[in-house]
Amino acid sequence: MASEFELIAKYFTRPAVRAVLGVGDDCALFEASAGQELALSTDMLVGGTHFFADTDAQRLGHKTLAVNLSDLAAMGATPRAALLSLALPAADEAWVAAFARGFFALADAHGVELIGGDTTRSPAGGVVLNVTILGEVPKGAAVRRSGAQVGDDVWVSGTLGDAALGLAALKGTVRLDAGQREYCVARLEMPTPRVALGLQLRGVASAMLDLSDGLAGDLAHLARASRLGARVDVSALPLSAALRAQAPELALRCALSGGDDYELCFTAPVLRRAAVEAAGRAAQVGVTRIGTMVPGGAEPVAYMDGAGREIALQAGGYDHFGAGA
Amino acid sequence: MASEFELIAKYFTRPAVRAVLGVGDDCALFEASAGQELALSTDMLVGGTHFFADTDAQRLGHKTLAVNLSDLAAMGATPRAALLSLALPAADEAWVAAFARGFFALADAHGVELIGGDTTRSPAGGVVLNVTILGEVPKGAAVRRSGAQVGDDVWVSGTLGDAALGLAALKGTVRLDAGQREYCVARLEMPTPRVALGLQLRGVASAMLDLSDGLAGDLAHLARASRLGARVDVSALPLSAALRAQAPELALRCALSGGDDYELCFTAPVLRRAAVEAAGRAAQVGVTRIGTMVPGGAEPVAYMDGAGREIALQAGGYDHFGAGA
Repeated sequence: MASEFELIAKYFTRPAVRAVLGVGDDCALFEASAGQELALSTDMLVGGTHFFADTDAQRLGHKTLAVNLSDLAAMGATPRAALLSLALPAADEAWVAAFARGFFALADAHGVELIGGDTTRSPAGGVVLNVTILGEVPKGAAVRRSGAQVGDDVWVSGTLGDAALGLAALKGTVRLDAGQREYCVARLEMPTPRVALGLQLRGVASAMLDLSDGLAGDLAHLARASRLGARVDVSALPLSAALRAQAPELALRCALSGGDDYELCFTAPVLRRAAVEAAGRAAQVGVTRIGTMVPGGAEPVAYMDGAGREIALQAGGYDHFGAGA
Repeated sequence: MASEFELIAKYFTRPAVRAVLGVGDDCALFEASAGQELALSTDMLVGGTHFFADTDAQRLGHKTLAVNLSDLAAMGATPRAALLSLALPAADEAWVAAFARGFFALADAHGVELIGGDTTRSPAGGVVLNVTILGEVPKGAAVRRSGAQVGDDVWVSGTLGDAALGLAALKGTVRLDAGQREYCVARLEMPTPRVALGLQLRGVASAMLDLSDGLAGDLAHLARASRLGARVDVSALPLSAALRAQAPELALRCALSGGDDYELCFTAPVLRRAAVEAAGRAAQVGVTRIGTMVPGGAEPVAYMDGAGREIALQAGGYDHFGAGA
């Protein structure tokens, strides 16, 4: 059986390119660019909580990096480098090779260097993955959650709820035709981090975050951070053909409370609508206006139907502990 | 039950001090100091592999950060910031509170800001912890593993093998008196990262790493990285009173192959002996000369007795997969 050191050396050691020193010493060394701030984020993916034990390893390699790239996108930061920790039940070389293929394909597409890592054994049987990602953003230019102003539009990229529908299909609680199923499961397992859009929105968006736990919960975080409220027109939510083919209640639940979208949710002044649309075109991703920021009230987010009537929704974000309790 | 968001907010959110932006947005923002390189390392600790399920949470909080600080120490880097991921079987507030106490006590002692994190559920029941640490070192001044020269002395800090003896005591394979047991278990569960010594050794040591997997395996890594061999005088190994009270074979096995020492192993020119000793005094930790670097041979490390005769040892480093195979 290949040892920890052999697996690391074979699949995860590449010569340092931009980094001063990469995998293989006690620390990696990285020289930040002049005039830039570092953007740093860390995400842990746990088998059984975030993915099924039989998830394709190559797709999992993609997703492990994608969820971290999505955090950089949400700040408007340029991806630079990543550190990867893996806990594996056994040193399964085929699994590691496939995981590394998925990870590096996405890393290479975004110019991300793997500069450090840790490989260890997970005795309880589950795979645990952790990535810390490092990006750069010009000093003062990062787009935070807290910058929204009253009257700003609320926007989202792409379509919402596809990953949640894909998860329901994998769990067998909904039946989809083959094409819809393939599309939604790919949205769940191979999310596209909106890095290019995040960069385009620097200087345009007033606040931004990525949708990992569902629009309802995540937009509430943005509203609270900005000390405001948000009003969302549910008839405006961008839904894929697969979602529009479902019962409206299911589609809405997926779009508002489903996790794993990894789309961007952001606010921008009304006067910047053309700039937002230009950013979407430049990044080749759809952008949809779904609401407006209002003074803070009892609830951080209010939902309206197409006629502007408030509707009551029970839609919280995904909570890793609450969900199981 | 407290939710994920509530636990993070209550125990892990502190106002940003040196960081531009801390916990609570998609990314933390950090501005590197002029003329410095960033040193980055990541380590994953898995319940059942790296610690027992019933390990005291406060000590575990200390150790989780300590093993990462030790990586910075080994490069001669100044600690700055950390990102922490936790996967927990349940949102146990008392456990999280104790863990946070241990973590922040050590973080505060070293000026480390917690700038990001992730809390999630571990369905299989085991706790998994991951820290990514961020330090700074003047450009070009980091002490790598690869800089040793033929004739350099080999040094270690502190004493070796105490943690391995503590682990054996916890497993019940050795019996220690109460004082020895307390000392050795504390060395296992509350290692002292040699940050001050690492800083003192910048410009003195030619190569350095920290001892996490045992001297035999780790010194072999340093020797290979420097394309040299090492000769170690086993009679010179610094052993605590607890270790010296054991059978010589057990003491030697703990000192050479026991993991979790988190002492520094480094090389330095013979002419810098006084400087090394001054560094140890300044950092208030013992430093002991245990060998010399030689041209590379068949084995990366050769062991000598006090009379200079080579002795045969079966002593590999700890390998997380190999150990269980």
